[in-house]
Amino acid sequence: MINYCNQKFSKSSVTAEALGALDEINSFLGLCKVQSSYLELKLGNESFAEIVHEIQKNLFIIQAEVAGADKTIEEKKVTELEEIIEKVEKELPPIKSFFVSGGPADITAWQQAGAGLGAIFDIARTIARRAERRVIAASEEILQPSLPIDNKSENSPLGGRKKEIGKHTKSYLNRLSSALYIFARYSNHVSGIMEEAPDYR
Amino acid sequence: MINYCNQKFSKSSVTAEALGALDEINSFLGLCKVQSSYLELKLGNESFAEIVHEIQKNLFIIQAEVAGADKTIEEKKVTELEEIIEKVEKELPPIKSFFVSGGPADITAWQQAGAGLGAIFDIARTIARRAERRVIAASEEILQPSLPIDNKSENSPLGGRKKEIGKHTKSYLNRLSSALYIFARYSNHVSGIMEEAPDYR
Amino acid sequence: MINYCNQKFSKSSVTAEALGALDEINSFLGLCKVQSSYLELKLGNESFAEIVHEIQKNLFIIQAEVAGADKTIEEKKVTELEEIIEKVEKELPPIKSFFVSGGPADITAWQQAGAGLGAIFDIARTIARRAERRVIAASEEILQPSLPIDNKSENSPLGGRKKEIGKHTKSYLNRLSSALYIFARYSNHVSGIMEEAPDYR
Repeated sequence: MINYCNQKFSKSSVTAEALGALDEINSFLGLCKVQSSYLELKLGNESFAEIVHEIQKNLFIIQAEVAGADKTIEEKKVTELEEIIEKVEKELPPIKSFFVSGGPADITAWQQAGAGLGAIFDIARTIARRAERRVIAASEEILQPSLPIDNKSENSPLGGRKKEIGKHTKSYLNRLSSALYIFARYSNHVSGIMEEAPDYR
Repeated sequence: MINYCNQKFSKSSVTAEALGALDEINSFLGLCKVQSSYLELKLGNESFAEIVHEIQKNLFIIQAEVAGADKTIEEKKVTELEEIIEKVEKELPPIKSFFVSGGPADITAWQQAGAGLGAIFDIARTIARRAERRVIAASEEILQPSLPIDNKSENSPLGGRKKEIGKHTKSYLNRLSSALYIFARYSNHVSGIMEEAPDYR
Repeated sequence: MINYCNQKFSKSSVTAEALGALDEINSFLGLCKVQSSYLELKLGNESFAEIVHEIQKNLFIIQAEVAGADKTIEEKKVTELEEIIEKVEKELPPIKSFFVSGGPADITAWQQAGAGLGAIFDIARTIARRAERRVIAASEEILQPSLPIDNKSENSPLGGRKKEIGKHTKSYLNRLSSALYIFARYSNHVSGIMEEAPDYR
């Protein structure tokens, strides 16, 4: 059994899966923050390390919410994240739907640190997407009437939720992977790395 | 809902899982490519960065196929990957079934970069295996007659597939983890790191 | 089908999932070991690289056990891991339940290597937790009587187990994430990085 914020879950429940995936993206962002700090990546006056640190703190709120605590992401935080995405996007060439992560094969030596940061932001994006899928799965579970929901506690012994995940929390997780995508592109851009789209050949 | 190549999937479907896992290995290979480039790892005239870049582009084809697009991996690409594996294997001492990743505990300072690259290729191997399992799960789903397959679209709203994943695509994913295993061993080998087999004690 | 230690499993079985997740944490620890070695992180006379290498070897035992081999973790190994945790804990300020991974946003240049190591130990912790969940799921499968257990072989074609996972193996996996948590904190501590608890605002 997992004990998180005074709620207990079976380790094989969908809630435990969602909490585990959120934990994975939160800790992986710790690495992104350290590398951003090393490269002194900035957006205007604000460092990317500060931006990532703020995201990590918001993920702790989501982790508490998924665990059953009376917390949720406020709309204001979604708007803030969208504003950051917009700001970074303005610095970039027009967007393509996909690009091959890590830059082309022939980058120069001084581009490697930036390409490395771009690569780990892109890895973070894919882990964030996994966390989003797991939270949605945990959120959908309550809609299945066949689950043995325990009416006496906030969560059933099987991890069935009685409370929907907040709308803005879902939006935040959705925007998070967009933000990490744009951070990966920005890291490449400031290092002079050209993006290459896949050619499907 | 996920919109990928004009197909829509529930985020909790097995197809979304397969796409997510392919996305994870593709982006992680971006990091392997940058580190290979940093160490200037080569196989004859070809750089490992180029080899990895080529694999990433092939993964985009597989991602499109799993999403329902009319694309698949051709047999030629499987053969090419097998040839690379063979070429690298020739440079290595006879193969053991497992080795402890990251080399022994007492490597010297100059061996650390190579050991680091070996370690991330080995991590990539394990993520590639997860992607393979997810693609097989998505491919097997059609075999379950109880799934509500929607006959009007290529994929049902629940992500049930109407089309089998291509035979060579499955082979490619299978060989991919073998290739990454051999790349990890090669990175260690060129850095003079002795492989240590687990002793199960 | 997966062939591991002469046992065969469907790639979509819970046993294959457990083996895959153990493989992920084992290979990720290879990276932790290389980085620990680079920073020469020590606990008394013993290097963290040696400690991590020992953990990797124990994970190979668990992988063999989950695959159906006649191996298991002995109680002594759990005690040893607990002793390491205690020893490291003594060096640290009183424990908090969570901290924001990767340190604060404004670490100095010389703190970055330590913060990077702390970040990857923290990532390892989250992957170890995933492996623990997968092993528990594989272990619980036998309790479901509806599964078509094949009585002629050690494991059914669907990966249903006839043998429970050992008690000390489960304890070891449980302590492993505690150990990696404490290693992350120690890496930060020796680099002079202050831990920041999430403020849920």
